Amino acid sequence: MNRDMQGYLEETEARILSHLESNHVSDTIRVSSSYSVKAGGKRFRPYLLFATLEALGKDPMKGVHTAAAIEMIHTYSLIHDDLPAMDDDDYRRGKPTNHKVFGEAAAILAGDTLLTESFSIMASDEALSAEKRLAIISRTASKAGFNGMIGGQMLDMEAEGEEIGFRQLEHIHQYKTGQLIVLPVECACIIADAPREIRNRLLEFSEKLGILFQIRDDILDVEGDMAVTGKQVGSDERKNKMTYVSTYGLEGAHEELVNLTDSAGEILDGLSGKVDTQELHNVLQMFAVRDQ
Amino acid sequence: MNRDMQGYLEETEARILSHLESNHVSDTIRVSSSYSVKAGGKRFRPYLLFATLEALGKDPMKGVHTAAAIEMIHTYSLIHDDLPAMDDDDYRRGKPTNHKVFGEAAAILAGDTLLTESFSIMASDEALSAEKRLAIISRTASKAGFNGMIGGQMLDMEAEGEEIGFRQLEHIHQYKTGQLIVLPVECACIIADAPREIRNRLLEFSEKLGILFQIRDDILDVEGDMAVTGKQVGSDERKNKMTYVSTYGLEGAHEELVNLTDSAGEILDGLSGKVDTQELHNVLQMFAVRDQ
Repeated sequence: MNRDMQGYLEETEARILSHLESNHVSDTIRVSSSYSVKAGGKRFRPYLLFATLEALGKDPMKGVHTAAAIEMIHTYSLIHDDLPAMDDDDYRRGKPTNHKVFGEAAAILAGDTLLTESFSIMASDEALSAEKRLAIISRTASKAGFNGMIGGQMLDMEAEGEEIGFRQLEHIHQYKTGQLIVLPVECACIIADAPREIRNRLLEFSEKLGILFQIRDDILDVEGDMAVTGKQVGSDERKNKMTYVSTYGLEGAHEELVNLTDSAGEILDGLSGKVDTQELHNVLQMFAVRDQ
Repeated sequence: MNRDMQGYLEETEARILSHLESNHVSDTIRVSSSYSVKAGGKRFRPYLLFATLEALGKDPMKGVHTAAAIEMIHTYSLIHDDLPAMDDDDYRRGKPTNHKVFGEAAAILAGDTLLTESFSIMASDEALSAEKRLAIISRTASKAGFNGMIGGQMLDMEAEGEEIGFRQLEHIHQYKTGQLIVLPVECACIIADAPREIRNRLLEFSEKLGILFQIRDDILDVEGDMAVTGKQVGSDERKNKMTYVSTYGLEGAHEELVNLTDSAGEILDGLSGKVDTQELHNVLQMFAVRDQ
């Protein structure tokens, strides 16, 4: 990641936190919603958005509001997924999960807050025309909604402990995690008015990135280091969850990861000359080798 | 309520349900989110929006998307508020609450769905200009978010069992229920380009309507008929909740209701000649005497 990218990510976090600070009604909500944002994470989705804007020759600063909104939606989904009624996780990013610190009611409401306020941030983005803001709001609601992330989370919950086929596993991940990785690329293409052909190739790239992200996640659940991942290791197996590792074995999952990384890289190579893919190659590497 | 208004409310419900039908990923989410919409309710907020549009001489059909979105947000808030970690209610509108039927995970996700998809509906409202859609999205996120409904719900949870003053009780309700009653009036003024002076008076009216709504709610919790309200009676007292009734007594609460109804009616009278307040008077009566 180049130093500029680091700066855009810092701008994104600052944008989120300053918005959350403007909460003057409930101290609990302000503190609990900020807690999960400050708990860190690699900001993969904002990074992917900025790298795509850079590839398309557009000033990445134009994407700060959108990146902030997407990261808020990602964060809300983690808070709700961690709840006892859902995945029931006690640790996230090395820290106690939101409901462990603030209780379930405050955690539910902190998630609701981040989701609701993400739309405030998108609607008030004065760097973009009204039409572009609406297009971004529309795509975001769609990718985060019932035909996207929420739908996938429900399928995932229902598949727990069930015998499902591999196709179905891929189908679940395509929604549960995939859509919110495609989203930053799609939004960057809207912001930069990307030509249709380039847009389609970038979306293909982001779909591969989504699968790759999930495979890496499953591998980390087996061989990750809790001190680094911040999550309890082995939780998929304990929950009898079907994963890429339980399907292919650890070695097979690693192979699949390498294959996907290669084919995603080839898409970028096919775009060279048309867009500057340097930073997107960095994103791809980061997704492939991440240890948290 | 005139027959046209009934038609707009039917359009609103149809708009919500057809949108929820377009969910092709999770059957559970489609069924659980539709369940709470179909469970009824008086559609006070859509009615208030349509009545305000009619008062302002604007075709109420222009408000169907916005009304649908506001009703979805109201419905999501009920689903989340009823959860065991929140108000822990088993009945709502005479039917088992969402989590009682579908389980907590599906209920949390059904709420998340209705909130997220409400923004899809607002963003795709082709009856309105991009600028008006953005203004409506922005006001909605603001009134539903941390400085509105969610903030109020958190304050309300924290006040349970506490000794709070009456001013604080009013403060809580202003956010928890008041903001989402002001919202339809504000959105109608955006859609109809209402002159500032008229807009300010209508907003004042809606603020009174919000307080009145809460007083009636508190009264119904004591003297309501479960067969009509669809809620368990006496739940505030069991939870040791401070209400208008616990503060003023039942008779005092009734008096307060009459006073507020009068002063809200006077605001409307002051507007006669400028706007056609007939239907807004009907809304006021409905709020004041509702038995569910």
